[in-house]
Parts: sequence; structure tokens; C-alpha cells
Amino acid sequence: MDAGESAVTCVDFWANGFGMRARIALRELGVAFEYVEEDLRVGVRSDLVRRMNPVHRSVPILIHRGRPVCGSLNILEYIDEVWSAPGETRRLLPGDPAGRADARFWADFVDHKVFPTQTRFLKSKGEEKDVAKEELVEQLKLLEEVLGDKGYFSGEEFGFLDIVLIPFSSMFRGYEQHGGFDLEVECPNLMRWVKRCKERESVGAVLPDETKMYQLHKEWYGIE
Amino acid sequence: MDAGESAVTCVDFWANGFGMRARIALRELGVAFEYVEEDLRVGVRSDLVRRMNPVHRSVPILIHRGRPVCGSLNILEYIDEVWSAPGETRRLLPGDPAGRADARFWADFVDHKVFPTQTRFLKSKGEEKDVAKEELVEQLKLLEEVLGDKGYFSGEEFGFLDIVLIPFSSMFRGYEQHGGFDLEVECPNLMRWVKRCKERESVGAVLPDETKMYQLHKEWYGIE
Repeated sequence: MDAGESAVTCVDFWANGFGMRARIALRELGVAFEYVEEDLRVGVRSDLVRRMNPVHRSVPILIHRGRPVCGSLNILEYIDEVWSAPGETRRLLPGDPAGRADARFWADFVDHKVFPTQTRFLKSKGEEKDVAKEELVEQLKLLEEVLGDKGYFSGEEFGFLDIVLIPFSSMFRGYEQHGGFDLEVECPNLMRWVKRCKERESVGAVLPDETKMYQLHKEWYGIE
Repeated sequence: MDAGESAVTCVDFWANGFGMRARIALRELGVAFEYVEEDLRVGVRSDLVRRMNPVHRSVPILIHRGRPVCGSLNILEYIDEVWSAPGETRRLLPGDPAGRADARFWADFVDHKVFPTQTRFLKSKGEEKDVAKEELVEQLKLLEEVLGDKGYFSGEEFGFLDIVLIPFSSMFRGYEQHGGFDLEVECPNLMRWVKRCKERESVGAVLPDETKMYQLHKEWYGIE
């Protein structure tokens, strides 16, 4: 196999919380990759993205041996299957089917409950914003309950669900500024988990500056 | 392990396309299970559903050894992991990571593109309905392209993506009646695949009568 065939490329935008997952996972498993930035602020997608993800034209895209894998959770499963050798303890998903099902259930919750609620909270005003804020805090509290007093979501090992959720934390300061609440008070355990995750090389290297993140979302959603 | 501990229960509604997936997969792998009907036409969910899936209160729910697994794709992954012995040829997902990633990509496409388009097509009227109809046919044609001239989506073996999509076929007659088009003409290969799937014991036993399905959706969506 030559270098071209085994090469790994990750196409993403620096502020894309979904794509951060792929980049954190690759770093966690020590997979060297080339990073290609796709500026989502530009309305037209690059030729690479249109060729590699013609159905959605979205990022992240993981390109391995010339083949694209699209969709952030799909990419995490792929990374885990390709680069976690069987029998090794360093896996992203838990080893037992019940633990894996739980992790996938909550990943789906993050994507299809937390993310839309975040968007609603940031985009709306007045009463709608208040309702969305309350829902968002409730959802984070539910995740805090799932975390419990464990170090990471599946126990003492940083893994799949941690990687799924941690990119959202780069918006937490933005949430607070936007909604006037204090997550340290609302979800103290979750905030301790955020700190713990951020101490990891993989997370620290990928998560963007929180002020820049909120600034970008303000521009995107027309927040004054 | 006593019978109670190893028992498998599937909570579902007869017309739930997502739940049909779980029931087909269990039958394919020869897993005996108790079926518990949850009538989704009733506004209030049963105690069982509220206890087993407090977050979404939705079905299907697979209960194994007293523990719930929720979300139809999550359930398929779980069934594959628990009841497909390693090394056996009878697996739901392909064996190679790239094939698995493809299957998961298109499953996500069915859930987050085809299903919402179907809903829009059935619920809307006039121009909006025409647009949704055109999109729905385009999406089915794209799936026909993925199928190609293979017997099943991943080759000659009925598997994950077949199970994900086949329940939708019980609405195909309804689509035609609702939109005045002919899927035999639009997607001939896909329609041959539907016939092939329906000859399987698992699919035949689970898929409901197409006229009853369309009738139910007419009531649900207020179609005259």
C-alpha cells in the first residue's frame, strides 16, 4: 500500500461542532491526517466537497484510501472499526452491546434534540427564546444525570459519547451570554466533565476559542 | 439465566415503519420474541412505553434482559451485535468498515431525507405537494442507483439497508394513489427488489396490508 492509498484526509470547517468529533477521534487514536478547511461562510461548496459528498454537500468528510465517509457519527463508527484493533482497550465505543446501544441512543439525543434546541435558542427572541432556553437547560441536566459521578460518559475512559458532546461545550459561554444563566450552577458535574475533557491533548487541539465561536454564531443568526 | 432474563420483547405499533425494521431483523436472525402492541392512534402512551423510553415515549422499543434499547437503527445495530455470532455469514451489517459506513450513510438518508419528504408529500396540497412528489421520486431513484443490479443493497445477502428501507414499500401503493404516478415506470429495479424482499418469510410476516396502511395515513394526515 503506498502513502496515497493509506492517506487520511478530514475536510471540515473550524467552527463545525459535528466535524470536531472526527478530528478529536482521529487524534485520540493517533491517526495522522491531513486537514482541509472548507469555509462554510462561503455559499458555494468546493469541488472536493461536491465530489466527495454529492448527496448532502456537507462536512465533515473523512477520506480514507480515496473513499469518502460522511456524517459525523458514521465517521466515528468507521474510525473505531478501522483504527481500534480488536482486543485493544483503547476503543471509542463501549465493548458490550448494551453499553454501545446506550451511547448511540444519547448521541442521537444530542443530534436530534440538543442541537435543534440550541439553534432555536440562538435564533429566536422573546417568549420563544425563553422556552428554548428552558428546554436546553433541561436537556443538559438530563445529560448530567447520564454522566452521574463518572469521569466520562462510559466510565473512566474518554470515548464515543464524550467525543459526540464535547464540541457543544465551545458554545456554552455563548449560551450564558445569550441567555443570562450560569451553567456552573445549573450543571456543575457536566462543567467539571468539560474541564476534564479539555485537559486532553485531542480536545484542547481541536476546540476553538469560545469567544470566536459565539461571535461567528452571532453573525450567522443575526444576534445583536 | 432463566427465561425472564433472556426474554426478548418488542413494543411496537403494526403500522410503524421504523418498528417493522426491528421485527424483520429479529425474524431474520431467528430470535424468538414477544410482541406487545402500542396503539399510536391513542394519544396517551402506555405505562410500559413511558417507563422504558421516558425520553421520547416512542416505539419501537426492544427489551432484552429487562433493559430497553430505543431507536430503530440503534435496535438493528444491537440485534446484529447480540445475535450475529462473530464469523457467521448471517450478519445484518456488511463485514468491512467501508461497507458498513455506506449502509449507515444510506440508512440516515432514508430517515432524514426520504421519511420527511414522504410526510410532506402526504400532508401538503397543490404546488407544495407537487414539489414534494418530485423530490420523493428523485430520492427513490437515487436509492435505485445505489441498489444497481444487485439482488440486495449490500450484494446477494438481505441485510441492514434492505431492512431499513423495505417497510417504506408498504406505502408505495399509497404514494401512487396519492400522487398519480407509477413506481414500476419510475424505479423498475427498486420495485423488483421490493418483490424479492417480500418473498422472504420475515418481510412477508411483518409488512402490513398496503390498503390498510394508506387508509391509516389518510386518517392521520386528513387526506380526502
